[in-house]
Amino acid sequence: MLGKARRLALLAEGRFTPLDAKTAVGVLRYRAGEVAAVLDATRAGRTAAACVGVGGAVPVVADVEAAATLGADGLLIGVAPQGGELPEAWRATVRAALERGWDVFSGLHVFLADDAELAALARAHGARLVDVRRPPAARRIAAGRAATLGATVVLTVGSDCNVGKMTAALELVRALEAEGGRATFVATGQTGVFIAGRGVVVDAVVADFVAGEVEALVLEAARDGDIVVVEGQGALHHPAYSGVTLALLHGACPAALVLCHQEGRDRIRVGGDTEAGWPIPPLRELVEAYQTAAGWLRPAKVVGVALNTSGVDEPTGRAACGRATRDTGLPASDPVRFGAASLARAVLDFAASRDTPAAAPRRERRPGATTA
Amino acid sequence: MLGKARRLALLAEGRFTPLDAKTAVGVLRYRAGEVAAVLDATRAGRTAAACVGVGGAVPVVADVEAAATLGADGLLIGVAPQGGELPEAWRATVRAALERGWDVFSGLHVFLADDAELAALARAHGARLVDVRRPPAARRIAAGRAATLGATVVLTVGSDCNVGKMTAALELVRALEAEGGRATFVATGQTGVFIAGRGVVVDAVVADFVAGEVEALVLEAARDGDIVVVEGQGALHHPAYSGVTLALLHGACPAALVLCHQEGRDRIRVGGDTEAGWPIPPLRELVEAYQTAAGWLRPAKVVGVALNTSGVDEPTGRAACGRATRDTGLPASDPVRFGAASLARAVLDFAASRDTPAAAPRRERRPGATTA
Repeated sequence: MLGKARRLALLAEGRFTPLDAKTAVGVLRYRAGEVAAVLDATRAGRTAAACVGVGGAVPVVADVEAAATLGADGLLIGVAPQGGELPEAWRATVRAALERGWDVFSGLHVFLADDAELAALARAHGARLVDVRRPPAARRIAAGRAATLGATVVLTVGSDCNVGKMTAALELVRALEAEGGRATFVATGQTGVFIAGRGVVVDAVVADFVAGEVEALVLEAARDGDIVVVEGQGALHHPAYSGVTLALLHGACPAALVLCHQEGRDRIRVGGDTEAGWPIPPLRELVEAYQTAAGWLRPAKVVGVALNTSGVDEPTGRAACGRATRDTGLPASDPVRFGAASLARAVLDFAASRDTPAAAPRRERRPGATTA
Repeated sequence: MLGKARRLALLAEGRFTPLDAKTAVGVLRYRAGEVAAVLDATRAGRTAAACVGVGGAVPVVADVEAAATLGADGLLIGVAPQGGELPEAWRATVRAALERGWDVFSGLHVFLADDAELAALARAHGARLVDVRRPPAARRIAAGRAATLGATVVLTVGSDCNVGKMTAALELVRALEAEGGRATFVATGQTGVFIAGRGVVVDAVVADFVAGEVEALVLEAARDGDIVVVEGQGALHHPAYSGVTLALLHGACPAALVLCHQEGRDRIRVGGDTEAGWPIPPLRELVEAYQTAAGWLRPAKVVGVALNTSGVDEPTGRAACGRATRDTGLPASDPVRFGAASLARAVLDFAASRDTPAAAPRRERRPGATTA
């Protein structure tokens, strides 16, 4: 996706915080070596680590010119504005980048390459506009094919959007590899695709084809790994995005699930509002909901809980993990703060316990609904 | 959608059967007065009723020229080919229609208006290419707003695709009106939109916005009716389309559900294959699954079963309805064959029993998942 080795400037104007700049933080956490600077004039002069806790000494600067002096040669839009449009204030930044011949990487809902002014500017300066949300042209229809794989498919699922499903998946892959497993990561969101360099932003796909795209990604990933870890999206209890979540669950046909939650969050965020919103059920209800929904197609088991404890101090975070384990009977960890080894072992134990490499689908043929 | 009063030719070439020509059959059932002819050279000379059981004496003819002599002035593509492309064999038919200045109505995945040749032809002859699957430009994010409506929202849900969810919804509206209810129909699929003249083909919407589109449609419909009947899509147990189904369920926030099933079908059809596919669970498991999934956001109750018994004889159909009632404890009827009065009464009784016009959302505020 990012192509050649990069020195990126990450645009996070006015919003370079852990929660707002999800994409910037993800790229800093997993590809910091390719980041030259972060653009946020309101925080210029600080380091990435000081602002968001990752990215070490990567400097925050005010504009494209300052990033250029640090060797940047590409611009990545590192925040997702409400509505998905390009804010007018950022247009000048994108223009300045293109005028220097930088490629611009965007996960906005609106496609930069379809903007006549920016497209002309890119052409004039030999730069590329890469819209990572642009869906594949193929119209893939899922058919539960991933249920027949020999590889163990693991999906991260969650209590809400933005609780750490991508991070849990990436940390799990790392921990599985540390344990000697052959694991592959399947990216399904813009940040994941920027980090992995491949994948599909599934919530930008036409609804009929989401499960089909996920199925194709999983079948491909299973060629490279015994364990396929799929980045989840949304939440079954989310009023806007539950459909994307179920399409992922039924497209990926996971055998194992890792439940992700942010400690302290008790309401689903709707429309960016952290106060309004729907209550998040207890973890054990979430475990049951995800297992039930998976079971409509193919049984799956939640094997562990990934808690994002970044909002509380370390002792509180440890206590929260202990409580999650007591509530669910499952290993629980903050994969960033306390490591994902316990989750990796749970996945490996589960994979070893599967009766056959290719588990049977949901159930045997049985009489139709009304012919009993 | 269809605009001025029409005399349509319905294209169903080689596939004018009840199951294959779903859109043509729907338009014939509910807007037969606007149909001049059906195009299927392999069945030319017969009547619609002889081929598909509805549409009375509407003649089947071989080509656009023959339809024109019967007064046709528009072409509607009445079948959905596998893959959603325009089959090469139909291009000549679409061209012939445009050359006569006919508007062409299409629910194909591929948009006819984006086809350079057809677009040029339409311009040259003052004809319109109407692509009913083209999603709205708006990017609407659902927020469970439909849960707060005073109107009773009813959603038809099903055991599979193409079991009769649209027909059940339309017959239910008719029966509610016969009982004196003020009911409105919300179309969510191409046939429904052709029939209703408005609505959105939700499975053509980008996944993030499906629930938001449905929410907007339901809020608008609630201004015209005390009971809003929403056409369902897909099935929670379908490997490809379950995400669309859940997005509809959470976007519409129904209080009541009508479960639809085709008598005799025991497997979910995947990729058009009627033999392969996943088993359909018993009706009472389906009732539970839909109520569970709705309850993740807002409780809903299945109030009746709509059985499509078109594939069996009448006594067998009656027996199937009796069995469905015994299995589920709910009224069951084939709304086309035996009428929807019992389902309408179940909906009205349910609406009358609701404590308050605006039912409370899922649950009261409660402690977060790990803070019990």
